[in-house]
Amino acid sequence: VVEREGRRVPAVLWEPDPSGPGDERGQESVPLVCVGHGGSGHKRQDFVVDLAHSFVRRHGCRVLAVDGPVHGERRATGDAPPQMVLLQFAQRWQQDPAMTDEMVADWRAAIDAVQALDDVGPGPVGWWGLSLGTILGLPLVAEEPRIEAAVLGLMGLSGPTRDRLEEAAASLRCPVLFFVQWHDELFPRDRAFALFDAISSPDRRLHAHPGGHGEVPTEALRASITFLTDRLGAPPLPAAEPR
Amino acid sequence: VVEREGRRVPAVLWEPDPSGPGDERGQESVPLVCVGHGGSGHKRQDFVVDLAHSFVRRHGCRVLAVDGPVHGERRATGDAPPQMVLLQFAQRWQQDPAMTDEMVADWRAAIDAVQALDDVGPGPVGWWGLSLGTILGLPLVAEEPRIEAAVLGLMGLSGPTRDRLEEAAASLRCPVLFFVQWHDELFPRDRAFALFDAISSPDRRLHAHPGGHGEVPTEALRASITFLTDRLGAPPLPAAEPR
Repeated sequence: VVEREGRRVPAVLWEPDPSGPGDERGQESVPLVCVGHGGSGHKRQDFVVDLAHSFVRRHGCRVLAVDGPVHGERRATGDAPPQMVLLQFAQRWQQDPAMTDEMVADWRAAIDAVQALDDVGPGPVGWWGLSLGTILGLPLVAEEPRIEAAVLGLMGLSGPTRDRLEEAAASLRCPVLFFVQWHDELFPRDRAFALFDAISSPDRRLHAHPGGHGEVPTEALRASITFLTDRLGAPPLPAAEPR
Repeated sequence: VVEREGRRVPAVLWEPDPSGPGDERGQESVPLVCVGHGGSGHKRQDFVVDLAHSFVRRHGCRVLAVDGPVHGERRATGDAPPQMVLLQFAQRWQQDPAMTDEMVADWRAAIDAVQALDDVGPGPVGWWGLSLGTILGLPLVAEEPRIEAAVLGLMGLSGPTRDRLEEAAASLRCPVLFFVQWHDELFPRDRAFALFDAISSPDRRLHAHPGGHGEVPTEALRASITFLTDRLGAPPLPAAEPR
């Protein structure tokens, strides 16, 4: 848990085993990957943990995850069915224009807190976040100069913060890998193409796969890990198991 | 040169050095990659040779290339400026409805001829062809059951053979990697998306990169080699140089 001006930011940090094969790289330059969870999920949902294990064990990175608004430990009232969490988020997204700013500040405070730890330094930072992880993460990537590469997608130029997303996209400069699900029933692909088109980063690419919003294939996850770790200077560890 | 019913099919075949590291795989199962050149190019243009070297030296494949209509050694009148070749091709595309059928038959005859060689057998076949290589190659992939995986793209649902392309796309079943150049000035991306959308293969993905028709990045070529060789069972050779 990170404290920001009295505000509680529920966060989790995964770190490589200091006796493991990545040790000789020097702790100060270990990349930090920030992972944004999905709508109705939380900072320890299955795919976040799986990604964290890949980044940490195979590439020697640190991984940071934070609960989003009305998600995970931010819920005053505890667990709720996923559709209820999504509805509450949709209301919040519609009614609270400060939501994005608050989350950007929370993430920046969490990154500050990690980099202030005794054995951590100002290493390269990456962003991984699809869907809700793009709604909240794209503005963060645009405003946080420490973020050097980003995986985004499953989102389009739509929703209550459409203008904010467009503005953030236009100010992006870092390398981006952007995912589209061809049959996305939540954020149709033409709106996703428009968001990709708005991204100003000269170094960007879009990968599209068949299937609905929730059907991102393993191939995409694998490509996202390769992309981020390439850009952050964290190639596969020599002792890592083969993928 | 392959002969098909009196018709001359100018072709070139690259093969692994039989004393090289791929030898122990067994010649009968060596994959054959068919590479379609681009408009105004020919079967030995730079990128075709570069691809051939990667497939042969790093993955132990055979590579076959054939000159397209009014291209390369098919030109009765010898060399011409690229824009002249493109114009002549555009005329031919418009005026000769049999052009696609002829090229499909030529390619099939060339594959037959390679597989009939003494040390070659009925191994897996892949297709690599963008732009002109999709105009002519997509119908080939649709009609040739020996082709098990295809790299296509830089083309859309447009042009004189638009219906033929749509029909071919609808009958595809093999895994496909499809490339789009985001700022393609010849075949705009919305038409390219429509062609990708028409492909029936359950296993397909689209990679889009910024830039014009001729600006396919190295990253795309690398991904295309990995994709095809994965699907054809030709992982990197142990002795191959690192990419």
